[in-house]
Amino acid sequence: MNSLSDRLPTFAPADAALSRRFQRVRAHSLAIAAPLSAEDCCAQSMPDASPIKWHLAHTTWFFETFILERFEVNFTAHHPAFRMLFNSYYNGVGAKHTRAQRGLLTRPALDQVLAYRQDVDARVTALLNSPAHVLDATFSELIGLGLQHEQQHQELMLTDLQHLLSMNPLAPVYAPDAVRPTFAGAAPSWQSVAGGVVEIGHVGKGFCFDNELPRHRTFLENYELATELVSNADYLRFVEAGGYTDPSWWLSEGWDWIKSHSLSHPLYWQYDAVWMAFTLRGMQPLDLQRAVTHLSYFEADAYARWAGARLPTEAEWEHAAGSAVLADLFGVCWQWTSSSYAPYPGYQPVAGALGEYNGKFMVNQYVLRGSSCFTPDEHARVSYRNFFPATARWQCSGVRLARSV
Amino acid sequence: MNSLSDRLPTFAPADAALSRRFQRVRAHSLAIAAPLSAEDCCAQSMPDASPIKWHLAHTTWFFETFILERFEVNFTAHHPAFRMLFNSYYNGVGAKHTRAQRGLLTRPALDQVLAYRQDVDARVTALLNSPAHVLDATFSELIGLGLQHEQQHQELMLTDLQHLLSMNPLAPVYAPDAVRPTFAGAAPSWQSVAGGVVEIGHVGKGFCFDNELPRHRTFLENYELATELVSNADYLRFVEAGGYTDPSWWLSEGWDWIKSHSLSHPLYWQYDAVWMAFTLRGMQPLDLQRAVTHLSYFEADAYARWAGARLPTEAEWEHAAGSAVLADLFGVCWQWTSSSYAPYPGYQPVAGALGEYNGKFMVNQYVLRGSSCFTPDEHARVSYRNFFPATARWQCSGVRLARSV
Amino acid sequence: MNSLSDRLPTFAPADAALSRRFQRVRAHSLAIAAPLSAEDCCAQSMPDASPIKWHLAHTTWFFETFILERFEVNFTAHHPAFRMLFNSYYNGVGAKHTRAQRGLLTRPALDQVLAYRQDVDARVTALLNSPAHVLDATFSELIGLGLQHEQQHQELMLTDLQHLLSMNPLAPVYAPDAVRPTFAGAAPSWQSVAGGVVEIGHVGKGFCFDNELPRHRTFLENYELATELVSNADYLRFVEAGGYTDPSWWLSEGWDWIKSHSLSHPLYWQYDAVWMAFTLRGMQPLDLQRAVTHLSYFEADAYARWAGARLPTEAEWEHAAGSAVLADLFGVCWQWTSSSYAPYPGYQPVAGALGEYNGKFMVNQYVLRGSSCFTPDEHARVSYRNFFPATARWQCSGVRLARSV
Amino acid sequence: MNSLSDRLPTFAPADAALSRRFQRVRAHSLAIAAPLSAEDCCAQSMPDASPIKWHLAHTTWFFETFILERFEVNFTAHHPAFRMLFNSYYNGVGAKHTRAQRGLLTRPALDQVLAYRQDVDARVTALLNSPAHVLDATFSELIGLGLQHEQQHQELMLTDLQHLLSMNPLAPVYAPDAVRPTFAGAAPSWQSVAGGVVEIGHVGKGFCFDNELPRHRTFLENYELATELVSNADYLRFVEAGGYTDPSWWLSEGWDWIKSHSLSHPLYWQYDAVWMAFTLRGMQPLDLQRAVTHLSYFEADAYARWAGARLPTEAEWEHAAGSAVLADLFGVCWQWTSSSYAPYPGYQPVAGALGEYNGKFMVNQYVLRGSSCFTPDEHARVSYRNFFPATARWQCSGVRLARSV
Repeated sequence: MNSLSDRLPTFAPADAALSRRFQRVRAHSLAIAAPLSAEDCCAQSMPDASPIKWHLAHTTWFFETFILERFEVNFTAHHPAFRMLFNSYYNGVGAKHTRAQRGLLTRPALDQVLAYRQDVDARVTALLNSPAHVLDATFSELIGLGLQHEQQHQELMLTDLQHLLSMNPLAPVYAPDAVRPTFAGAAPSWQSVAGGVVEIGHVGKGFCFDNELPRHRTFLENYELATELVSNADYLRFVEAGGYTDPSWWLSEGWDWIKSHSLSHPLYWQYDAVWMAFTLRGMQPLDLQRAVTHLSYFEADAYARWAGARLPTEAEWEHAAGSAVLADLFGVCWQWTSSSYAPYPGYQPVAGALGEYNGKFMVNQYVLRGSSCFTPDEHARVSYRNFFPATARWQCSGVRLARSV
Repeated sequence: MNSLSDRLPTFAPADAALSRRFQRVRAHSLAIAAPLSAEDCCAQSMPDASPIKWHLAHTTWFFETFILERFEVNFTAHHPAFRMLFNSYYNGVGAKHTRAQRGLLTRPALDQVLAYRQDVDARVTALLNSPAHVLDATFSELIGLGLQHEQQHQELMLTDLQHLLSMNPLAPVYAPDAVRPTFAGAAPSWQSVAGGVVEIGHVGKGFCFDNELPRHRTFLENYELATELVSNADYLRFVEAGGYTDPSWWLSEGWDWIKSHSLSHPLYWQYDAVWMAFTLRGMQPLDLQRAVTHLSYFEADAYARWAGARLPTEAEWEHAAGSAVLADLFGVCWQWTSSSYAPYPGYQPVAGALGEYNGKFMVNQYVLRGSSCFTPDEHARVSYRNFFPATARWQCSGVRLARSV
Repeated sequence: MNSLSDRLPTFAPADAALSRRFQRVRAHSLAIAAPLSAEDCCAQSMPDASPIKWHLAHTTWFFETFILERFEVNFTAHHPAFRMLFNSYYNGVGAKHTRAQRGLLTRPALDQVLAYRQDVDARVTALLNSPAHVLDATFSELIGLGLQHEQQHQELMLTDLQHLLSMNPLAPVYAPDAVRPTFAGAAPSWQSVAGGVVEIGHVGKGFCFDNELPRHRTFLENYELATELVSNADYLRFVEAGGYTDPSWWLSEGWDWIKSHSLSHPLYWQYDAVWMAFTLRGMQPLDLQRAVTHLSYFEADAYARWAGARLPTEAEWEHAAGSAVLADLFGVCWQWTSSSYAPYPGYQPVAGALGEYNGKFMVNQYVLRGSSCFTPDEHARVSYRNFFPATARWQCSGVRLARSV
Repeated sequence: MNSLSDRLPTFAPADAALSRRFQRVRAHSLAIAAPLSAEDCCAQSMPDASPIKWHLAHTTWFFETFILERFEVNFTAHHPAFRMLFNSYYNGVGAKHTRAQRGLLTRPALDQVLAYRQDVDARVTALLNSPAHVLDATFSELIGLGLQHEQQHQELMLTDLQHLLSMNPLAPVYAPDAVRPTFAGAAPSWQSVAGGVVEIGHVGKGFCFDNELPRHRTFLENYELATELVSNADYLRFVEAGGYTDPSWWLSEGWDWIKSHSLSHPLYWQYDAVWMAFTLRGMQPLDLQRAVTHLSYFEADAYARWAGARLPTEAEWEHAAGSAVLADLFGVCWQWTSSSYAPYPGYQPVAGALGEYNGKFMVNQYVLRGSSCFTPDEHARVSYRNFFPATARWQCSGVRLARSV
C-alpha cells in the first residue's frame, strides 16, 4: 500500500482558507446539535445509528488521532479513555467500545465532549497557523480528510436523529424549518445516453476518497436514465397496487425481509386516515410531489421492476451525470444503483489505519450516488460513492430509474 | 375479586402524618436522582432495567392514575401522552410504551418530568388536605400503596443505575459515600429452629402487598439457619475452588446459563491482578468481609450445595425471622430462598388494574426475603416477598444458608 | 449423599419375575416402534424431542452403563462411540452428543441400534439368570430403575412421535387404533376434601424415584377438587369466549408467550370449517367429550382462572387421590398442578451419576400429576411427580380444577 | 419478459439422443444415493442444505410441473401433496413447504419417492417417444433445462451429504473411493492476460441458463491470473501465520463473522495432533498437495489479500479461461470471484415461473466460476455462473489468485 500522499491528490499548502474552512465545518456540527438537549444527544435508537454526542466526539477523535498525535510536539491525549471510547472501527488504532452500547455513555457528559471539541480545535488551529506545517502536503490532506469525514458524520447526525425521534410516540419536532427534499419535477422523461468505453472515477486535484480512485475505463451499452426522481406519488401507486404483497416484484431475499418485518411502505410513512410521514419537522402529511425517500435497496429495486424499468449501475449514473441534463442529481436524495460496492480496478487502500476507511466494507453493500438534502453543500461530487446494505432505509435514499435500449 | 378496601388492612384516615410521609417519600426519589445529569437519567442499560427518568415519571403516573383520576373533580391529565408512556404493565389501564425502548424517550425532557412530579404532587397534596377525603379509607390506602410502590422503585433506581454505570468503561462514581452492604459478622453458626404447624403471612394493621396475604398455616420440619450472611470471602473460596467449572454443583439450567454466558464470578466482580468490584462508589477492591451480593438464584443455589447446605424456603426464613436471633435479616442484602413465587392459599388479587400488581408474575420467579442496603428504611418487613427470575443478578441479592436436621 | 441402596426401597432379590418383567418392558419399546420406518425413527422435530431411534438406544445405554459396566466381569462396550452418542445428560458419565443434533445421527442405522438392544438384552438376561447376583439388592434395584426409566421413555416416544408426525403436511397416521384419551365423564361436580397436617410422598416397598421421597408432612387448608377432567367442549368455550385475546386471564409471561408465538388454541387443534385435532390416528374431528390435552401450564392456568377456579397444588392432588373418589386420576392425561418442581423437605439425590436423574431439574418447571393414556400401565402411582416447563405442550397434559373454600 | 423459446438457445428436436441423455442423467442421481440408507436420505443438517430424498423428489417435481403438466394430455399429479412438498422456491407455482423442515418429511418414504421418480420418468419417456412432440423446440428445451437442473442438484446432493455426515461423531464414510479434488500442480506462476474490450457470456447453440445471457462487451485492464489453484499447503501457511487472528486481512463483515463463529480454519479441517479433513471418504489426513476447498468468500478474499494478490472478477476469469492456459479451471473446485452476482446488461428472465430460477437471487451473493470434482461432467462451461453468499463454505469452493499489473 502506498503512503497517503501518493494516493490522494495534492493539495495546495495549508493557508488561511483551510483554517477558515476548518472553523466553518467544525461549527456546522455544533449548529446541527444546537436545537437538542443533552438527553437527545445521548440516546442511540439502533446499533446502526449513533448518538449525536458520539458523532461530536468521534469526529474530534479523528483529528486528535490523525492530526494531533502525528504532528503535535509532545502530544498528550485530551483524555486517555476517549481514545478507545470514540474509535469507531479502526482496528489499526487499538481497542474500540462496543458499537451497540454507545447510547449507554452518559459519561462523558455532553459538556465534556464540547470541551473536548474546543481543546482539539484550538490545538489543530495552532498547527494550522504554525509555519512549520505550511508546506507539508500530508498535513493539509489529513485536515481535508478530517473535514470530509466530519461532513459525512453531519449527514449521519441528521439521519440518526430522525430515526431516534421517530421512535418517540410524541413525534418530536427537531426544527420547524428543518431541511427536506425539494419538490420533484413535473413530467419525467427518458434521457438517452450513448455508451462505449467511458471513464469513471475521480479526476482532477480536488479531494476524493480512496474508493473513487483510480479513474478507469469501463464499457457501457447505450441506455436511458429518467430525467426526474421517483416521487411520493409514484411510489404510493406502487404501494396501493399491492406492491408489497406480490413476490414477483421482489428479490427473494428482499421478499423474505419485508415479510419477516411486516413492511408495507417506506420507513417513515404512516397511514392514519390519510398518509403521513415523520420528518425532522415532526409528523407531516405525505407530500406527494416530493421525491420518495427512506427506501431500502430492496424497495428501490422492486419499485423499478414494477415500473418496467431498473436501477442504473453506478457507472451509468456517473457517466450520465458528467454530460447529460438530469434534474436533482444532487441535493434531494441519494439514488440507489444496482452496483455492489467493490474496489475499482487497481484500487489500493491508503497505508495505515486510514486504509480501513473504505476498503474493508466492500462486500454486501450497494452504491448510492448523488447526494441528499442532508448532505453538506461542499460534500457532493459526481464520483462520490456512498454505500449501505440492501436493508438500510434510515438514510435519505430514493430512486432514479434507468432502462436498457 | 374483592374491592381494595376489603383486601388491604384498614388505615387511619388521612391526616397530617400521611401528608408529611407523602412529601418525604416523594422527595427521596428526587434525592436519589440529585447527583445525576439529565443524560444519566435517560439511558437504559438493558430491557430489565429502566431509566431513572422513567422511574420518576412512572411513580408519578401511579398517583395520577390511581389517585387523581379517581378522586379529583374535573380531572384532566397533566399530559395525555404520559398516560401511555409511563404505564409499566397495567393492561387494565390501556396502552403501554415498549419496555425495551424506554431509553429512547429523550422527550419529555427530565425537566418536564420534574414539572410533572411537581404538578401531581401539588394536586395530591391538595386532596390530602381536603376535608372531603379525610374519612375515605380507600383514598388513604391508595396513597399508602403509591408510596410503597415508589419505595420499590427507589431501590430499582439504585440497582438500575449501578448496572448502567457498570457498562461505562469510565467506571463512573455515583457518589463517594453511596450506600453499600455492611460488614458481615465474624463467625457464622447454625441456629436451630423448631418446626411444626406455623403461621406466615402479614399480620396486623400495617401496610402489606396483596401477595403477603392471607396469613395462613404451613408445616415445617425442624431446621437450621445460618446466623450470618455469606461473605465475599466465603464466595471467593467457591470461585477459587473451581465452583464455576464443575457441573455437579449446579442446576442443569443454571449450568447451561453460566456456560452460554461465560460467567465465572458474581456480576460486578472483576479480576485485574487483584479482585475488584464495581459499586456505586466506583470500582473498589473487593471487600472480603462484606456480604456477597449481586448473585443470581443459580449462583446462590450452587454455592449452597457446594457448602453442604441449601437455601431456606421462604416459610423457614419468615418463621425464623419472627422468633430467632439472626444477624442482618434486613438492610444488607436480599436473601434468595428456594421457594418459587406462588400465591398463598386463599390468595386473591385486588379488583381492577391494581390486581395486576403482583399475581400475574407468579411463575418462573424465586422469592427473596429480607431487604438490602438499597431498600428504603420503612419498606422492610418480615412478611415481604421480593421476587426475581433465577437469572437476575443486578439486584443486591445474596445468601443465607439453611440445612435440614 | 447416600448410596443407592440406602435411598431406594429394598427389592426382593432378582428372580424369574424380574427377568420376565425385563423382557416384557424391553419388548414394549420395540412394539411402539414397530409401525415405523427407519426414516420415521431417525428424525427429530424440535430440540425438546428426540428421535425414536435415539430413545431405543438411550434406554439401552442406561442398562449398559449402570448394569453391565458395573456387574459384568470383563465388561467391554458394545460400541465405544455409543457411550457418548446415547448419553442424555449425565455429566458424571462423560461427554454427551449435542441434544439438538440427535436427528442427524443417520448412523448408527436403526438396524445397528436394534442389534445394540439385542446384545445388551442378552447380557443383562445372562446376569439376571446368574446366581451371583440373585442376592444383590442393588442389582435388582438398578434393573428396576432401568425399567422405570425405559417406561418414561416409552411415553416420550409416543409424544415425540406425535409431534414429528404433526409437522408433516401429509398428517400421517401412526396407527388407526392408537391410544387416545378416553371420554370424559358427564357432569363434573366439586369434591370437598378436608385439610390439616397430611402426609405426601412415596410410601411402602414398591419402586419410586428419589424425587418422591421422603414421605413428609405438609399442611393443607380445606379445598375442593373437580371430580372430572376438563373436556375439549369446556376448553372450546374458553377459546370461543376470546380466552386467547384477553390478558386478564393470563400470567404476564404466559401472555407474552402466546402473543409472540401467535397461539390461539391447544397445540394440535386446527380450524378448517370445523375443529380438527391431530392425533396418532391422524387428523380427526375434535372430540368434544374427551379430555382436553396438549395444554401448556400457561393455558391450563389461564383456563382455570377464566373458569373461576385454580389449579390444585401437588399436595392437594396427592392427598385427595389417596382418599377421595375422583374420575380419571390416571390413564387419561397428566394434570398440571400449580406447584413448581422442588425438592421435598429432606430430599437427597442418590450418589453418583444416577443422582443427576431428578434433582438438577428442580427449577422453572411445574409438576404434573396422574398419568396419561400414553403412560405404560405399571408406571402410574399416586406419588409420581412428572414435570415440565410452563411452555411445554407436546405432552398429553390437561387440567383438573380446584378451588379454595 | 420473453417467452422461453425466445430466451433459450434453440435445440435440435427431441430424438433418441435426448431420450438416452434423460435416462443417463436421471440414473446418475440414483447412483449417488445408492450407497445410502433411507435414514441417510431423510436428514437435513442445516436450513441451507436439503435431504437427499428431497433432492430426488424435487428434481422429479420439476419434470412433473414443467413437462408433464404442460404436455401430457389429461395430466393428473402423481400425488397432489407432492406439488407443494417438493416445490423449492417457485412462488409462481403455488405453496411451498418450509425449507428448514425438509428433514422432518419421513413420509413420503424413500421408496415412495423412488416410485414417484419411476412414474414420472416413464411418463416423460413416453412423451419423449411421442411423435407429437418431436418437433416442439420448447419441449426439448424444457427437458434440457430439467436435466441441467438435476445436475445442479447432483452436486448439491454430494455437498449436502458431506455436511450431514460431518455432523456425525462417527465420521461415516460415504464411499471409500468417493470423488475428491485432484492434486494441485507444482509451481504456480502468473499468466499475463491482455485486457481491452472483451466479450463474455454464453455463445453458441448449446444450453445455458438465462443468467449467462446476453453475451456482451465489457472492459478489462491487463491483469494476471495464477496458473494453479491455491493448495492446502498454501492455505495452511496462512492459518499458521495467524491469518485468522489479524483483522487487517479481512473484510469487516468477514472478521465479525469468523469471530462470532469462532472460526480458525476451513470448514472440514480438524486439528488432532496432525491436521485432518473430513471428506466423503471419511476423516483423512489433510492432503497438502490438493487444492484447498470449502472456503467461504470471506476466507478466500482474506487469503488473497494476505498473499499480496486478489480474487479475479468473473469477467477476468471467463476471458482468460477462453484463451489462456491455466490448470484446473474445471473439475477440481469452484473458484470464488470478487464479482457480486448481478444481471448482465440487457438480462431478462424467462417468462413465467421458470423466470424465478436465477434472477431473483441477484443480491448479496458472489459468483464462483469453473466447476468442482462434484460437478457432473457435462455440466461445466466457461460462461457458467455459480453463486453463493459470502459465508457459504459447504460447497467445494477454493481460490485461484489474480493481480493487477
